[in-house]
Amino acid sequence: MLPDLFTPSTLRALELAGIFVFAISGALLAVRKNFDVFGIAVLAEATALGGGIFRDLIIGAVPPAAFTDLGYFLTPLVATVLVFFLHPQVERIQRGVYVFDAAGLGLFCVTGTTKAYEYGLGLTSSATLGLATAVGGGVIRDVLANEIPSLLRWDRDLYAVPAIIGATIVALAIRLDALNTATSMLAAATAFGVRLLAIRYHLRAPRAWNRRSETAEEE
Amino acid sequence: MLPDLFTPSTLRALELAGIFVFAISGALLAVRKNFDVFGIAVLAEATALGGGIFRDLIIGAVPPAAFTDLGYFLTPLVATVLVFFLHPQVERIQRGVYVFDAAGLGLFCVTGTTKAYEYGLGLTSSATLGLATAVGGGVIRDVLANEIPSLLRWDRDLYAVPAIIGATIVALAIRLDALNTATSMLAAATAFGVRLLAIRYHLRAPRAWNRRSETAEEE
Amino acid sequence: MLPDLFTPSTLRALELAGIFVFAISGALLAVRKNFDVFGIAVLAEATALGGGIFRDLIIGAVPPAAFTDLGYFLTPLVATVLVFFLHPQVERIQRGVYVFDAAGLGLFCVTGTTKAYEYGLGLTSSATLGLATAVGGGVIRDVLANEIPSLLRWDRDLYAVPAIIGATIVALAIRLDALNTATSMLAAATAFGVRLLAIRYHLRAPRAWNRRSETAEEE
Repeated sequence: MLPDLFTPSTLRALELAGIFVFAISGALLAVRKNFDVFGIAVLAEATALGGGIFRDLIIGAVPPAAFTDLGYFLTPLVATVLVFFLHPQVERIQRGVYVFDAAGLGLFCVTGTTKAYEYGLGLTSSATLGLATAVGGGVIRDVLANEIPSLLRWDRDLYAVPAIIGATIVALAIRLDALNTATSMLAAATAFGVRLLAIRYHLRAPRAWNRRSETAEEE
Repeated sequence: MLPDLFTPSTLRALELAGIFVFAISGALLAVRKNFDVFGIAVLAEATALGGGIFRDLIIGAVPPAAFTDLGYFLTPLVATVLVFFLHPQVERIQRGVYVFDAAGLGLFCVTGTTKAYEYGLGLTSSATLGLATAVGGGVIRDVLANEIPSLLRWDRDLYAVPAIIGATIVALAIRLDALNTATSMLAAATAFGVRLLAIRYHLRAPRAWNRRSETAEEE
Repeated sequence: MLPDLFTPSTLRALELAGIFVFAISGALLAVRKNFDVFGIAVLAEATALGGGIFRDLIIGAVPPAAFTDLGYFLTPLVATVLVFFLHPQVERIQRGVYVFDAAGLGLFCVTGTTKAYEYGLGLTSSATLGLATAVGGGVIRDVLANEIPSLLRWDRDLYAVPAIIGATIVALAIRLDALNTATSMLAAATAFGVRLLAIRYHLRAPRAWNRRSETAEEE
């Protein structure tokens, strides 16, 4: 068992903040796709909780935290109400949403990796599940909205890389027996910072070498 | 543990009827999408059993009922054969299919909520899983068919609301220690009735306020 | 408990080979869809491991083998690197990829059925999960890539049928108490052979009878 990384109330407040901003991103996509208010709520819940539910099913932590902690369930509904009534204003502060989303990404890759390791998985698997926790909700959001997952597209700024870096730092810290509040915060802050740099400078990952453009997008 | 709501054989007959009509809706979509006979069977199975399988994975009831009760598996195959040979006739009685689908919706939101509560979840989570049991199969059906889930679209008659109402009545009945055959049937019948009213009067849920139409449907 | 079908090292080598070729098919689709290198890796992992993860979640074998055996996780990354640098050459040997994919199909329908039975499921459910193990990864691949699953389309050569045949042979062998290395290899070889015949002669499954063409592809 790892030491408690944060005071429980601090950690929970951080997690709810991450869930909130992920829910905002789901709700905004739902509005853009012209969904009704229930569609907005479903997409907000799926985006915010999907990655953690996937992780918990894989590690055998059932029922998942999303179904035992009422705050996890209610927070996306708050985001739904906010976007429902104020979405033009929320759209306008899109830049702010990106910053919070980056914070959620950094936080979840750390807590996801840590929780998977606590359930007995190896370091590589734990880091992979940290990544899945951080990016899984966004993939489920895009699949439900019938879009190609933004995570997979070459024309989007780096999103997986910051989470991989954060999860790897946590795994290294565990390996070196140095996981504590400081190293956890360092990992989350690094992922957060790399994501902000990726947005600022439009950093993107390469596509396959020698890709012939004439075959693009066809089946 | 809750009292048995129905005689086991009655409950099972009702559940198989619900599975059958959900399977019909999956099979009909598969025909419209031009799938072959195996595609029809896969979509029928996924639509009929997907919601319950999701619920069972979340509550830790593995293997899910769909994999332990042979009737659950075979019923969608019967629906597949029927639609395969007779789909123009089945299409023609679409109105009848809607009525049975509404019955399945009412039944599954009740049995889903009850089963989740029996596995130790809280009332809110149980009602959420009741909703997921009732509507989950349809979402999986539409995702597999590469369509925007009908559940999320604003231009479809209310579908989540009846299930939410039914699941909430069950949760309230449990809270008041009044869950029995009568209240369960009341919950299912209310969900069934609200769904039929939604179809009859084209009741729909609102989209986001102040939604600017020029942004519709674009990414 | 069933007897060990193969020496463990032989079985593991076969499984890794199957994972590798499934990963290649995922990576190639990712390149065609213009995904970046992380998108290629995600699609390779999901295609190669998705079917087995689904099976393991259903039978309660958590964490799934994909998260406890590092080779399962690393093999798709090798496929990613290969396709990333050499995809025109890999495309050119598409015919070779089909042969290996058929081998993976044959192998996974056998190991999937056997593993499900070892976890206590009935014969029908075990064979169904064998089928799901073999074809599930491809369905997840296509859903993530926002395509109609190739498994469901009428204009693709038979893919489910060979896996159904292989899984059924295994189930029959278990029923007759005759499951051993020879019958397992027979089942895998039969599925492999039927799949190759389906490709060679473009064998396809029928669509619904009396299908009126004017309704095709519309919602």
